[in-house]
Amino acid sequence: MKIAVFHGSTRVNGNTEYLTYQAVPKEKGTHIYLRDHDIQPIIDKRHAPEGFPVVEDDHTQLIDQLLEHDTLVFSTPIYWYGMSGPMKTFIDRWSQILRDDSYSHFRVALKEKNVYLIIVGGDHPRVKGLPLIQQFNYICEFYGMTLKDYVIGQARRPGDIVNDQVALTAASTLIHID
Amino acid sequence: MKIAVFHGSTRVNGNTEYLTYQAVPKEKGTHIYLRDHDIQPIIDKRHAPEGFPVVEDDHTQLIDQLLEHDTLVFSTPIYWYGMSGPMKTFIDRWSQILRDDSYSHFRVALKEKNVYLIIVGGDHPRVKGLPLIQQFNYICEFYGMTLKDYVIGQARRPGDIVNDQVALTAASTLIHID
Amino acid sequence: MKIAVFHGSTRVNGNTEYLTYQAVPKEKGTHIYLRDHDIQPIIDKRHAPEGFPVVEDDHTQLIDQLLEHDTLVFSTPIYWYGMSGPMKTFIDRWSQILRDDSYSHFRVALKEKNVYLIIVGGDHPRVKGLPLIQQFNYICEFYGMTLKDYVIGQARRPGDIVNDQVALTAASTLIHID
Amino acid sequence: MKIAVFHGSTRVNGNTEYLTYQAVPKEKGTHIYLRDHDIQPIIDKRHAPEGFPVVEDDHTQLIDQLLEHDTLVFSTPIYWYGMSGPMKTFIDRWSQILRDDSYSHFRVALKEKNVYLIIVGGDHPRVKGLPLIQQFNYICEFYGMTLKDYVIGQARRPGDIVNDQVALTAASTLIHID
Repeated sequence: MKIAVFHGSTRVNGNTEYLTYQAVPKEKGTHIYLRDHDIQPIIDKRHAPEGFPVVEDDHTQLIDQLLEHDTLVFSTPIYWYGMSGPMKTFIDRWSQILRDDSYSHFRVALKEKNVYLIIVGGDHPRVKGLPLIQQFNYICEFYGMTLKDYVIGQARRPGDIVNDQVALTAASTLIHID
Repeated sequence: MKIAVFHGSTRVNGNTEYLTYQAVPKEKGTHIYLRDHDIQPIIDKRHAPEGFPVVEDDHTQLIDQLLEHDTLVFSTPIYWYGMSGPMKTFIDRWSQILRDDSYSHFRVALKEKNVYLIIVGGDHPRVKGLPLIQQFNYICEFYGMTLKDYVIGQARRPGDIVNDQVALTAASTLIHID
Repeated sequence: MKIAVFHGSTRVNGNTEYLTYQAVPKEKGTHIYLRDHDIQPIIDKRHAPEGFPVVEDDHTQLIDQLLEHDTLVFSTPIYWYGMSGPMKTFIDRWSQILRDDSYSHFRVALKEKNVYLIIVGGDHPRVKGLPLIQQFNYICEFYGMTLKDYVIGQARRPGDIVNDQVALTAASTLIHID
Repeated sequence: MKIAVFHGSTRVNGNTEYLTYQAVPKEKGTHIYLRDHDIQPIIDKRHAPEGFPVVEDDHTQLIDQLLEHDTLVFSTPIYWYGMSGPMKTFIDRWSQILRDDSYSHFRVALKEKNVYLIIVGGDHPRVKGLPLIQQFNYICEFYGMTLKDYVIGQARRPGDIVNDQVALTAASTLIHID
């Protein structure tokens, strides 16, 4: 099992990150912190005659890493009841990848991926985070990825997550790492 | 009634824009195209001792415009079953506004706003767009904004929206403009 | 097109019924009022060695009618943010039909059906009715039925529905009856 | 803490029941099996001049029991992506209680209740059970009840639930019973 974790938080060592390490310790997976990468917002050129322009940023490098792993963990704080902007921007650009001849295998390759979600919020995340789970489920369905499971943590202030014993336990048993 | 329309699409004259003009003709509201503005992703500094840094971009100017209107329309294509990245980034930064002493009235001011949503997608948007509606509803609840109503349009290719007669009709009667 | 409308309301000539007649006038479809029929709650015997008992009520007769039509309209007031109890009881019993040798064609036959939903509620139904839409969508997915579209009406007191012009319009154009 | 558990399953000793006993052992709460009670479907008479008729069944007795406890657990198998018919019928009748002069304290009394949900399904319940969670959340919101938490279990065949270790653990720590 090769695990890639995509961290959507913009804060270093935040609650979401802490919870995620219970699921995938630092040394057990490839941890990618989206905040450390330059990812430009998509400009929808799917229907433009010239197609998408080449974008000089880190996106394709991250996609390459994604493709090298069979298990994908998307870890994001709940920002305004959705995934973080950086994670949304990262995923929006998949539309460009789908039109990129160098990645014609992208969609088929994703079909083999197992996906886990870890989301953390401060405002009733066990209920108000459900649309985000549903959104990710649709993303997985689109690609034929398997949404294996998810953990929803509750935390508002830094460090709060240590009090969500249920989430910590759930995270620590989320993925059966060899 | 003073209407501000926030367009989240990254494509000029796309389906979502077309549908939105049925609800708010160009000359009947202040149309703001997020794609034309520099909006930096948030870096969560809510809990940092130094607080949020000043960001040199267009965000506060857009917030100023938002505050000057009583009716807000959020118009976004459905990108991966959520709002577009630029719109998410725009809203994420509200967390920074909430900590900005120059905008101490922000939260209270939003309480008076009426909100409408216009979303357009290609993959069963009438069902798969529902988590996005629910997400926006939670955003409105947080601020005490009134989510008046929404329209979900179906379109995949440029121009497709003209075939969604139900959505066009619904949009044209969405807001009772004086 | 042969349309069967299943009315879940327990009140005669209620708001939901009124809205439904905009979509399917009385003379244009087979209108079945679940309240007029004896439908016993399911007792789950899927795993009992003896199987389901024969139940002496109207359920199979209603299933027979369902099977004779290609277009199914489920019309229900929103009771406690879900379909009405009688409609739930009606659908619960489908589990028994699935095990009934006389209806071995049931699942395959449903695959050909087009489904429409009409739901009416008094407490923010355009948002709080969405889980009910999602539930019906899963039911349709299970059988491979096509969820064509839905209308959500708002009404609290008898007759209120006439004020929901958007819903009335949407209902009247919901189904293209020959 | 006085716990009442309302069991919605129609099958004795099913998976949902097993999971529920992990949360509330038989001797630690008042266990009410809706299948053992006569609960008539509601007939909506909220707007009838004569009001609701007296119904000779077990409903008010169950409501009395509900009111005597401060913690309510609703435990239901997922039938067609919703609560079981008997549980829906039980809750539908609350509309009648709200109009019953003998229960004028009902709505206020519920405000003090803490609610837990335990639901079990066979078809991707961790995703397809979410509308049911959202529905219960709206019910709780209506009454001002506190939806404390929920557990979603996966099981299809009798006994399957013992394999859902995550759900068993979550159930066993769901309620802190004195």
